[in-house]
Amino acid sequence: MGRPGRRGREGHRQEEKKPSVAPAGSMGGRYKPLLDSEVKQIFDAALVVLERTGIEVGESPCRETFRNAGCRIDPSINRVFIPPNLVEKAMSTMANEVLLAGRTPEHDLHLGSARVYMGTGGQAVKLLDLKGRVRETITSDNYHIGRLVDKLDNIHFYMRPVVCRDLENEDIDVNQFYSCLAATNKHVMANSYLPEKVKDLRIMANMISGGAEAFNKRPIISFTACWTVSPLRYAMETVEVLDEAIEHDIPVVISSAPQAGATSPAALAGTLVQLLAEQLSGIVYVNLIKPGFPLIMGCVPAQADLRTGAFTGGSGEFSLLNAACAQISQYLRIPIYNSSGISDSKVPDAQAGAEKSLTGLAAALAGSNYIHHSAGFLESLLTVAYEQYVIDNDINGAVMRMVRGIEVNDKTLSVNVIHDVCTNGPNHFLGHAQTLELMNTEYLYPQLMDRTTRDDWEASGKSDLRETAIVQAKEYLGNHWPKILSDDLDKDLRKHFKILLPENEMQPEGFWDRFLV
Amino acid sequence: MGRPGRRGREGHRQEEKKPSVAPAGSMGGRYKPLLDSEVKQIFDAALVVLERTGIEVGESPCRETFRNAGCRIDPSINRVFIPPNLVEKAMSTMANEVLLAGRTPEHDLHLGSARVYMGTGGQAVKLLDLKGRVRETITSDNYHIGRLVDKLDNIHFYMRPVVCRDLENEDIDVNQFYSCLAATNKHVMANSYLPEKVKDLRIMANMISGGAEAFNKRPIISFTACWTVSPLRYAMETVEVLDEAIEHDIPVVISSAPQAGATSPAALAGTLVQLLAEQLSGIVYVNLIKPGFPLIMGCVPAQADLRTGAFTGGSGEFSLLNAACAQISQYLRIPIYNSSGISDSKVPDAQAGAEKSLTGLAAALAGSNYIHHSAGFLESLLTVAYEQYVIDNDINGAVMRMVRGIEVNDKTLSVNVIHDVCTNGPNHFLGHAQTLELMNTEYLYPQLMDRTTRDDWEASGKSDLRETAIVQAKEYLGNHWPKILSDDLDKDLRKHFKILLPENEMQPEGFWDRFLV
Repeated sequence: MGRPGRRGREGHRQEEKKPSVAPAGSMGGRYKPLLDSEVKQIFDAALVVLERTGIEVGESPCRETFRNAGCRIDPSINRVFIPPNLVEKAMSTMANEVLLAGRTPEHDLHLGSARVYMGTGGQAVKLLDLKGRVRETITSDNYHIGRLVDKLDNIHFYMRPVVCRDLENEDIDVNQFYSCLAATNKHVMANSYLPEKVKDLRIMANMISGGAEAFNKRPIISFTACWTVSPLRYAMETVEVLDEAIEHDIPVVISSAPQAGATSPAALAGTLVQLLAEQLSGIVYVNLIKPGFPLIMGCVPAQADLRTGAFTGGSGEFSLLNAACAQISQYLRIPIYNSSGISDSKVPDAQAGAEKSLTGLAAALAGSNYIHHSAGFLESLLTVAYEQYVIDNDINGAVMRMVRGIEVNDKTLSVNVIHDVCTNGPNHFLGHAQTLELMNTEYLYPQLMDRTTRDDWEASGKSDLRETAIVQAKEYLGNHWPKILSDDLDKDLRKHFKILLPENEMQPEGFWDRFLV
Repeated sequence: MGRPGRRGREGHRQEEKKPSVAPAGSMGGRYKPLLDSEVKQIFDAALVVLERTGIEVGESPCRETFRNAGCRIDPSINRVFIPPNLVEKAMSTMANEVLLAGRTPEHDLHLGSARVYMGTGGQAVKLLDLKGRVRETITSDNYHIGRLVDKLDNIHFYMRPVVCRDLENEDIDVNQFYSCLAATNKHVMANSYLPEKVKDLRIMANMISGGAEAFNKRPIISFTACWTVSPLRYAMETVEVLDEAIEHDIPVVISSAPQAGATSPAALAGTLVQLLAEQLSGIVYVNLIKPGFPLIMGCVPAQADLRTGAFTGGSGEFSLLNAACAQISQYLRIPIYNSSGISDSKVPDAQAGAEKSLTGLAAALAGSNYIHHSAGFLESLLTVAYEQYVIDNDINGAVMRMVRGIEVNDKTLSVNVIHDVCTNGPNHFLGHAQTLELMNTEYLYPQLMDRTTRDDWEASGKSDLRETAIVQAKEYLGNHWPKILSDDLDKDLRKHFKILLPENEMQPEGFWDRFLV
């Protein structure tokens, strides 16, 4: 559907054939946590921080890039001081829109403006299995969760969810991308641990895309590079990964993740200032190397619980920070990646439902483009659970329905329908032609959330949402084996790369015996 | 705290001594689901409906009031047609702000603008007890839930939650108000079933307030009158209650509750048009009788699940409708009462957590003044549960923290704090003077939501939020016995009115034996 005539909305989903009640890429931005003047104040303060406090950058080609552009460097404290004119210049060259492509166009993400997409995030180290047991994560989890996500319409992209704790470091990069790309046609994002692996990943993406040119037009993978350690310090080994991604023209998120009260100021506004300073430094850096490079700002503010110092997500403060970042990105006109769907709960209970909904709705209504972490996570990002993906699909659906909003036009205002029903009709709208016409386009019916009467619910077994979601997850995991890579392509990939996901792991035969021991 | 310098926020909570991290009455309105031009389109369409389709009003003093004001009446179809000039006139006389007072000023509700208060709603017919059993609701439930609500800071008012199914009709009105007023100092709202009881209720309120003048200044009770049956028909017996409330100067909500697709158009915009037409007719009517009367528009849009026709709350569509109503009320400049916190779930699970959060956050960010139903409810308004009140208190806290927003000023921008930490400091903000200063004013610590590690959580018994909330509800119910009515006053009330809540029910002695049999 979409809301025709809305600012910039039209046109960006023209490839999609079947209208969705809660379309990916709907235009957010109706929630503005900050006044416009406050956004400007935060931006101006970030410029002061960049010029006066600067960024800590070790000796490196990166630092030379800043030096050559005219930045003052103090080598005794490894700090680079970035003047406002460089920020201004970067803002004039940076990409305002970035395409992250799906293998098939209905999964394309047109990041920019206030268009909203919600997807998975990474990276968990523990998995809560379908019997409620917790174990370490392994490579094949990225494949099986990918198959599950492939079935869930309100999860719009697939960011590699878990750490491959079963692999050596040098095998992770290739295998985590492979496991995801083999599972779904949705866009795949992950990090790269080793800079020298980036080239391999570009080759793999070319092979799957059908060549380098095809990938350049429709990049089916992208990177996230956590290239800062807050406050205001570059992680030099990740800068190398970033450099390689730029070199090989793979779209990249520069992600900084300050925790208010621990690695950024306790004042929420101060955390935004520092985060924006970090981001602007990266926007300057990338645009110095390749102006207009497909760059996404990665604002991942969180908070420390100041009673204990522990990382926490899911709170009102967290939601405010993430929504504010979306608003700031629209002011800057650069695509944004940020977070929602984090919960501190250990299980898919009422707390998880609440925290995911609050954080997700805030970021989406504010118009964040690429909302990662918004499916599957528990325990402050440490654990994922299959049933949580299924639950979050329903939550994201409701959120996206809200982002789509209310269409107002002569037809929807329904003045004649009301007149008809009240003066000629049966005094109700059930069965009215308008009702029948709209029942499947105006309303999203949740997949799992229960709307039956208590009697019917009791008769059908009194399942709470977690129990229902486990049943649904089992069905998808058992039955959905999408053929994403052709046999030839897969053979080719396995010849070129050291693929450690066993072929039989990608077959339904004997799945439950391997999976749920 | 509040956000100084924000439009209209300052001053309205000056009575409150202790600053709250998530203050009642914080200014919403940062989420605007509609464009300003769309609000105007909806308003204009509602005027067309009022003039052309009209309202069904039976022969009554009410209809004569409309006739005397110049409305065309068609007695053959009982319809009153209201011209735009009468709406315009009512809008020039109607109250833009309404005080609903607590027994103590910290509980005052200053309805109007986009100030947000969240509280309970009514009325359930079933109660899920602390052992998970469902039973019919009785009078004493209103008292015990009131004591529980009295302990919960993020529930700002007490609307009578349950139907007294143990009483005869003629005893309900007095007893439901009494049971609530005896339990908490928060503002109490309920309906009146019988018009002739309104006078008694005014007398009771006078007695508790300390006289008629005291009540006129600080009305500690108010009414909700569901005076329409959608679409566009007056419920004549409730109009009589409304007439009595106006006569006795008790603030009143005129509430209409269309269900999109069943009793209003399936098009969301059309439901808003019809609802606004119903509301404007009531605003005209009340202001014809007493211009400037403390009237609150009661927008309670819901929806039918069009697969079954069943009432449903908790969806994205529901959230949009309620948020849109808040925005419309700000355009009209009249205080609003509406809904959130509805869930179709039967138990306090992930679904309940999600649905309550989505609906609550949308209405609050949109700036709804009096958000009822936002604590305790399950099963599409049929059931209440003690532990759900405790859970919703945490959800509402996070929501209100978000409504309060982000303070942006030279101090909070933290430019010097960042400089200090990065150049002189330990490179983190834990222990910094600003962090210590802000840790209890910038951050709301949830009462129940769990932020411990998985190991600690397992060691402490692996409770999900529902289990934790049951423990908390038990503690409050067992130990919190506020003395709201003095012995003399209570004796007086029991002399004047047929009070059916036994005195021993208001004593802790033997409570658990009576309560959890």
